[in-house]
Amino acid sequence: MEQLNPCSVLVTGSNRGLGLELIRHLMGKSNPPKWIFATCRDPAGSGSQDLKNLAAKNPQIVIITLDTTDPSSVKAAAANVTKCLKGAGLNLLINNAGIINMSSLEDETPESMAETYRTNVIGAMMVVQAFLPLLRKAAQETPLEGMSCSKAGIINISSQAGSITSIFEWQWSHVIAYRCSKSALNMLSKCQSLYVAKDGILCVALHPGWIQTDMAKSMGSPPLTTEQSLQAILNTLGRLSEKNTGTFVNWEGNLIPW
Amino acid sequence: MEQLNPCSVLVTGSNRGLGLELIRHLMGKSNPPKWIFATCRDPAGSGSQDLKNLAAKNPQIVIITLDTTDPSSVKAAAANVTKCLKGAGLNLLINNAGIINMSSLEDETPESMAETYRTNVIGAMMVVQAFLPLLRKAAQETPLEGMSCSKAGIINISSQAGSITSIFEWQWSHVIAYRCSKSALNMLSKCQSLYVAKDGILCVALHPGWIQTDMAKSMGSPPLTTEQSLQAILNTLGRLSEKNTGTFVNWEGNLIPW
Repeated sequence: MEQLNPCSVLVTGSNRGLGLELIRHLMGKSNPPKWIFATCRDPAGSGSQDLKNLAAKNPQIVIITLDTTDPSSVKAAAANVTKCLKGAGLNLLINNAGIINMSSLEDETPESMAETYRTNVIGAMMVVQAFLPLLRKAAQETPLEGMSCSKAGIINISSQAGSITSIFEWQWSHVIAYRCSKSALNMLSKCQSLYVAKDGILCVALHPGWIQTDMAKSMGSPPLTTEQSLQAILNTLGRLSEKNTGTFVNWEGNLIPW
Repeated sequence: MEQLNPCSVLVTGSNRGLGLELIRHLMGKSNPPKWIFATCRDPAGSGSQDLKNLAAKNPQIVIITLDTTDPSSVKAAAANVTKCLKGAGLNLLINNAGIINMSSLEDETPESMAETYRTNVIGAMMVVQAFLPLLRKAAQETPLEGMSCSKAGIINISSQAGSITSIFEWQWSHVIAYRCSKSALNMLSKCQSLYVAKDGILCVALHPGWIQTDMAKSMGSPPLTTEQSLQAILNTLGRLSEKNTGTFVNWEGNLIPW
């Protein structure tokens, strides 16, 4: 089995939930990345204490302030990471930051629709725009054949709830703002994959499963333990290649229809 | 062939382009609807002169102010239409208002993303929320079997450019904000179809073809004449039934993959 071996990884929204678990499991690998950029809106806030505790014990983890809804914050984060990397590229960018608001179709509000889209879609777009020079550098300078997450990749954390073909858990909640944002993120991901293909950069939309995170707990009973999902995700990231770019896959790498 | 025979139709964004043509062709039917509500942002503006000229000659056309980005405007429009209908329901709602901004993936802006989503998706959501009571009334009171646009239907004007499966005209323009908004609109449409099915209301996302409208002309050479597309659209609207609800079809009624 191919292994995930990027020198540098960046994960947005990494102070809790799936983001924090990704950082924890990347650190727990037998060969952890040299640089793990863990970004979050407010590293000084109490919600980032777990991440700070983890970083205190692991000097590879660099905490970076990044508010995906603020263009100047995204640009400043890219400048910070560029400085840390001292001329090296960024191998793997994981767009994980995301929000969800409960709603039914009739009580969904324009404010919730706009806020969810701003974080889940516009944020992911701006982050890729800002970090594209570092991803291109990694693609050029990493001596690996083909596309891979160890060379240069963008993973957009999407959701099965964004599949229009097979509407997931409708009876549980409509979450219109969330579903619409994830379908839009899937389109963004497909467009990004087309745009960065010429640079040899992989781009995939990934449904991580309903893991036992704060977000997923608010959505009923998630069937996967964090451990099960994260092990599967890291294995899948290690296996993704140019065959998968532009697709929508679950934690095990199985294709999800748009 | 089934015929399109709604008593009342509402079309948003009807002062120009496809919206105006829909009004014109609905009026040109051998049995035009009793009420045609033609909504636009600014009926007093110079951009609405063609619509005003058409309405001056056809008393069935009622021009209603409706800015799909303004919740209070949407509610006021629904109150106006309710008053006109004097207790009757609304048979057919066509969410046509939409915008497009040219962009490439790297120069797409957060402002353009947010603005396009506000009009193309959030607007369509608010309009359905506001007019749902009138659509339900039509569904209850129209003595027709099954679902149809003559009884109670929502048509969301989407675009082939919103198909993630088959990315359309990528080499011509990325139009990321537009593509993402149309994928999200397709998801909204699917969700609306599930939500209103119990009320007997049909809901379909429709790609009208690249017609020779102002918007389409800015997108290269549209292959269809207005006449070809509009005749096909009216025929398709007349044929849609419960078999089609929740799907994405083109002007001829052919299925488009999500």
